[in-house]
Amino acid sequence: MAEVEVIEVGPRDGLQNEAAILPAADKVRLIERSIAAGLRRIEAVSFVNPKRVPQMADAEAVMEGVPRVDGVSYAGLVLNPRGLDRALATGVDEVNVVVVSTDEFSRRNQGCTVDEGVANWAAIAARAHEAGLFVSVTLAASFGCPFEGEVPADKVLDLVRRITESEPPDEIAIADTIGVGVPAQVRTLLEGAGEIAPDIPLRCHFHNTRNTGYANALTALDHGVSALDASTGGFGGCPFAPAATGNIATEDLVYALDRSGVPTGVEIAQVTETAAWLSDRLDSPVQALLGRAGPFPT
Amino acid sequence: MAEVEVIEVGPRDGLQNEAAILPAADKVRLIERSIAAGLRRIEAVSFVNPKRVPQMADAEAVMEGVPRVDGVSYAGLVLNPRGLDRALATGVDEVNVVVVSTDEFSRRNQGCTVDEGVANWAAIAARAHEAGLFVSVTLAASFGCPFEGEVPADKVLDLVRRITESEPPDEIAIADTIGVGVPAQVRTLLEGAGEIAPDIPLRCHFHNTRNTGYANALTALDHGVSALDASTGGFGGCPFAPAATGNIATEDLVYALDRSGVPTGVEIAQVTETAAWLSDRLDSPVQALLGRAGPFPT
Repeated sequence: MAEVEVIEVGPRDGLQNEAAILPAADKVRLIERSIAAGLRRIEAVSFVNPKRVPQMADAEAVMEGVPRVDGVSYAGLVLNPRGLDRALATGVDEVNVVVVSTDEFSRRNQGCTVDEGVANWAAIAARAHEAGLFVSVTLAASFGCPFEGEVPADKVLDLVRRITESEPPDEIAIADTIGVGVPAQVRTLLEGAGEIAPDIPLRCHFHNTRNTGYANALTALDHGVSALDASTGGFGGCPFAPAATGNIATEDLVYALDRSGVPTGVEIAQVTETAAWLSDRLDSPVQALLGRAGPFPT
Repeated sequence: MAEVEVIEVGPRDGLQNEAAILPAADKVRLIERSIAAGLRRIEAVSFVNPKRVPQMADAEAVMEGVPRVDGVSYAGLVLNPRGLDRALATGVDEVNVVVVSTDEFSRRNQGCTVDEGVANWAAIAARAHEAGLFVSVTLAASFGCPFEGEVPADKVLDLVRRITESEPPDEIAIADTIGVGVPAQVRTLLEGAGEIAPDIPLRCHFHNTRNTGYANALTALDHGVSALDASTGGFGGCPFAPAATGNIATEDLVYALDRSGVPTGVEIAQVTETAAWLSDRLDSPVQALLGRAGPFPT
């Protein structure tokens, strides 16, 4: 098994769907704790409409508060040119642009069709590249759509092709936004994307909504993925996708990787402590299991 | 991917660790509901010391109450000759004999060393075979021990060899009793067992204590397993292993298999309804996710 980079998306995906809105200082604390635990790439904020996602309204304050640490990269999620303006003003290291694989979810999530999403991508990515940023694309709802149902692999791979041809991303993420995917889909999508864009690193983003998230993550590792998104405590969800519950949890993913002999540099005990702290701040239960089950071997 | 048989262990492993003790009529109802959902092999009871596992004390009453249905096979778990006497008297179709992979857990679970466990197996299995029963062996704590820690694969495979040489089982189950295993271990153990006993069907038994259970189950499917244990609602645990929480859940496993194109004959909606009913009867939360997340596609 190859090495893999675990990307902490808790400050963004983990918080955007919780009823409680954390103050910026707590978001900064979450990021500091994640860095202390060994995480080196962090999706810190999203630059989206504060009326639609009030949990993320203070992105600028969060980015002002985070420590600048050698080797630590902060990503900001961006859906449109206005979001990119904000991202450029705050000094994130990466932008992560979302293109949704289905029209109906794309309209509800970001007010455009898939075709318009591809055009958006090209314009945003070109500008972000000019500004010297690392630019990744996340293909949302690639394993299934809450509104359209099945999403054929060919449709997702066609999107990979069009995006790569329009403005090549520095990384392509295949995302199971609503937690419906299974390992057979992971194999098909990663193998297909690897053929279309052999030189672009692949990332995966899984939710454990139906208990397939960790199986998907470990399968992705065997099929060329170089990075996996995860959220401390397994918090998470999408405000515009019904019943899209938690991301795969950082601590549970790192446990599985540790036991599989895949180095991550992340300290599980620190992540479980952060998850308990975050649960208390959010008044929302930890979805990860490792904090309850305890380490192994003890 | 091959076909796989899903074995419902909820009436036994699912109930043995719950604080509430269900009346036999409810256990029969659970079994009837499981059959209605399409399950065809059911671990219905265990014949263990009622003082040590009071939840299972009424095994005889349960076996008297269950319907006899063509194609449905009832298994009873057995640890010793006294248990086999009871199993033979009740007319189960299968006995499932547990041999633990480590001395300390074996002593705590069934009062004998591993060597004594192998000798027990040979005596029990020979008698059960004489009585015409299907006899499986379950190698408990094969992925890790709550007391001894790491369990080397060679130790488990040596046990497979000794058991197979003493009295060949009709099926060998490799069990992650405390939910610590990862897919790399599944591959090693199943490939090793397949080499030692190429003609004996392999079964796996996983707990999702640390969120690796479904990844393990789907990996097992790619490595020659013909049957997987699961428990409706994901209830379960071992009274003699600290923090050994739920089995992988029948509904979540069947979801993953369905979406992977592996036929099971099990109706998810009926299983989620049974899980909700059981949760109510036990006053204990469903651990499975599918009932909360809902089906896909809707």
